[in-house]
Amino acid sequence: MTHTGRQLTSTLTADGTQVLEVRERDFPAPTGNQVLVRMEAAPINPSDLALMTAAADLTTAQFEPGKVTMQVHPAFAAGQAARHGKGQKLGNEGAGTVVAAGEGDMAQALMGQRVACVPGAAYADYAYADAAMCLPLGDHSAEDGAGSFVNPMTALGFVETAKREGHDAIVHAAAASNLGQMLNRICQEDGMGLVNLVRREEQVRLLKDQGAAHVVDSSAEGYEAALAEAIGATGAFLGFDPIGGGRTTDTILRAMERVAAARMTEFSRYGSDQPKKMYIYGRLDPSPTTLTPTYGFGWTVSGWLLTPFLANAGLPTVMGMRKRVLDGLKTTFASSYKTRVGLEEMLTQEAMTGYAQMATGEKYLVTP
Amino acid sequence: MTHTGRQLTSTLTADGTQVLEVRERDFPAPTGNQVLVRMEAAPINPSDLALMTAAADLTTAQFEPGKVTMQVHPAFAAGQAARHGKGQKLGNEGAGTVVAAGEGDMAQALMGQRVACVPGAAYADYAYADAAMCLPLGDHSAEDGAGSFVNPMTALGFVETAKREGHDAIVHAAAASNLGQMLNRICQEDGMGLVNLVRREEQVRLLKDQGAAHVVDSSAEGYEAALAEAIGATGAFLGFDPIGGGRTTDTILRAMERVAAARMTEFSRYGSDQPKKMYIYGRLDPSPTTLTPTYGFGWTVSGWLLTPFLANAGLPTVMGMRKRVLDGLKTTFASSYKTRVGLEEMLTQEAMTGYAQMATGEKYLVTP
Repeated sequence: MTHTGRQLTSTLTADGTQVLEVRERDFPAPTGNQVLVRMEAAPINPSDLALMTAAADLTTAQFEPGKVTMQVHPAFAAGQAARHGKGQKLGNEGAGTVVAAGEGDMAQALMGQRVACVPGAAYADYAYADAAMCLPLGDHSAEDGAGSFVNPMTALGFVETAKREGHDAIVHAAAASNLGQMLNRICQEDGMGLVNLVRREEQVRLLKDQGAAHVVDSSAEGYEAALAEAIGATGAFLGFDPIGGGRTTDTILRAMERVAAARMTEFSRYGSDQPKKMYIYGRLDPSPTTLTPTYGFGWTVSGWLLTPFLANAGLPTVMGMRKRVLDGLKTTFASSYKTRVGLEEMLTQEAMTGYAQMATGEKYLVTP
Repeated sequence: MTHTGRQLTSTLTADGTQVLEVRERDFPAPTGNQVLVRMEAAPINPSDLALMTAAADLTTAQFEPGKVTMQVHPAFAAGQAARHGKGQKLGNEGAGTVVAAGEGDMAQALMGQRVACVPGAAYADYAYADAAMCLPLGDHSAEDGAGSFVNPMTALGFVETAKREGHDAIVHAAAASNLGQMLNRICQEDGMGLVNLVRREEQVRLLKDQGAAHVVDSSAEGYEAALAEAIGATGAFLGFDPIGGGRTTDTILRAMERVAAARMTEFSRYGSDQPKKMYIYGRLDPSPTTLTPTYGFGWTVSGWLLTPFLANAGLPTVMGMRKRVLDGLKTTFASSYKTRVGLEEMLTQEAMTGYAQMATGEKYLVTP
C-alpha cells in the first residue's frame, strides 16, 4: 500500500539559488528491513541547518506558502557542485509510528510501534528508516524520543572518545547548548572532568545550577586566565569545539599550553611536550579556523563526526549507548523545545528567523 | 682539564630586545657518558633560526664585531617569557672531534674519534654531547657528517610516520628544500609515492632531474587542479607542511577532498569519508594557519616534531635510521653548502641577510 504525504526538500542550483519547498509525494511500501514511519516530531538541530539556512543569505529570502527562495554565498555554492539541481531531503532524526514494514523480521517486529529513527528525511509526513537504527520508545512520547539520536549519541561519543584516548577531563566550547547540557550531566555521572566554556553570564548560572564545577565565560574580563585555571584544575588537554571558525580552538589550545608551560622547568622553543588536542564537530561559524604558532608542535586539530565515530566504535558500544539514552530519555538526555512548527510553518519568515539563530534554550520541534 | 673557547648565545629581554653574541667561556671536563666535541662544522637549518632571526625585525639590527642587537616582534616576545634574560645556546647539530670524555664506557670509547652530534649548542668551539647520540663518522669528513641528524632523521621520520599510519604516498610542501630532496630520494628507495609541491618553475626541474615523478608548481596556472591530479594518481592523503602559516595546508586538504569527492556516488554535506591528514613540522611562515570549512569533518592537522617522534619510535627503530643515514652520507643524505662562515662572521649583516632567507640551495655551514 502506498501512502501519500508531504516532504520538505532543499534544491541548490549552479547559480547559487536555493529553494526549500514542501511537496506532496508518494511513499511506496518499504521492503527488506526498512520501515515506513509516520513522523510525529523532529527537532531542528544545528546540523540540520547546513542544507537549509547556514550558507544562505536570509536577507534575500522570498517567502511563499510552503516555499522559500534565497541566495547562497557564491563560494559555498561552487563547492557543492554535487548537489546542484538535486532535491535534498531534510531532517536527520525524529520519532513517529511505524505504519508499514518490509518483509524482514526486524522490520516486521516494529509494526505499529512508536520509534525514534534517523531517516535523514524526517521533515515529512512519512519517512523510511532502517529497522536496525530504530529505537522502540515504549511509553515515551514522540516528543521525548524525537531528539534521542544526534545530540545524545554525540555527547556520549565525546566521552567515549576521551576515554579511548586516555583522557579524564575535557573542554567544551559553546557549552550551554542542548548538547552541552547533556554533556554536563553525562560527565557528572561518569566522573569525567569538564571545563564548560560559554559566551554569556546567564549561561554560567544555567550550567552551575545543573551542577557544573567549571564554567568559564568568554565575555568576562580575564577569561583566558580563568580558562587556563580551569584546565589546570581538571587536567583537560582534549577539547570539543562546535564553533569551528575563528579563534575558539586556538584560544583553548593556548590556554592548555599556558598550563603545560607553567609546569616546565626549562624553556623550549618547541613548546611543551604536553599533547593538546581539539576536535571541531560543527561549524556554527563558517569563517576559517585560525591557528596561531603559539603552542609549539604538540597539538592536533581534527574534525569529529558522529557517523564515522559510530562505525569505528562497533555495534556493542553503539547498542550500549542507545540503551543508556533510552533509560535516560526523561533525565540525562531530555531536550526541551521552545517552539513547535508544522512543515509549512517552518518556511515562514518568523520561524526561519527564529531557528536560524540557533539561540541557546530556543530549540524548535517540527510536528508535521 | 678545562678547555676555553667561544660560544654563540641568544638573549631575549622582556622589552623585546634580542642580543646574539659570541663570548669566551670555559668548558670543564665532561662527566658520565658525556663527551666534549671540538666542533668543526655545523649547518644552519631552518629550525636553528627560530632563536636567531625568525621572530626578529632584521631592519632594526645593529651590528658590532661578534654581536648583533635587534628588536623582536612584541607578540612573540610576550609569549616567550620563560626565555627572558636567559642566554640560549644555538645550533642543534654538528660534527667534530672528541677531545675529552666522561668516565662512562660509551664516552671513553669515542675518545679521539670524529663524530656527528646533536648538542643543541653546536655554534661554538666546543660542545657537550651524549655519547649515545653521537654517530662515529669513520673516514667521513666533519662537513659530510655535520647535517646528519636533523634533516635525515626528519625525512626518514616522515616515511616512518606514513608507514605506521597505513599510507603508501605522501604530499610534501616546499619540497625543493635540502630536506625535501632527501625525502625525494628516500621515497624512491622505499617505493613510497610522493607529491612534491614547490614554488618555482626551476624547482620542478631540480626535483624531476632527481627522479621525482610528481612535482607541482604553485606559481603555475591551474596548479590546484594539477595538485589534485597528482594526489589522485598517488593516493596521497597524508602530507607534511614546513610553511605552517597561511593556506598551504588548507590548499592541500582541499585538493585531497576534491579527489575523494570525485569518487563519491552521492553528495554528502559532511564531505567525503576519506580521512585526510596534514602535519605541520615547521613555521617558515609565522602567520596563523588558516583552515576553511570546505573538506567536511574527515581531516586532521597536527604538529610534527622530531624529538617526540624519536621517543615514540623506540631505540631499535632510531638506531636503524642512524645506520641508514651513515651508510648514505654521501648519497641519499648528502647536503651541499653554498657558504661557509666562522662564528663572528655569522653575526655580520651580509651573512645574516643570507641565511635568514632560507633560500633553496643556499645552505650555510658554520666552521668555527
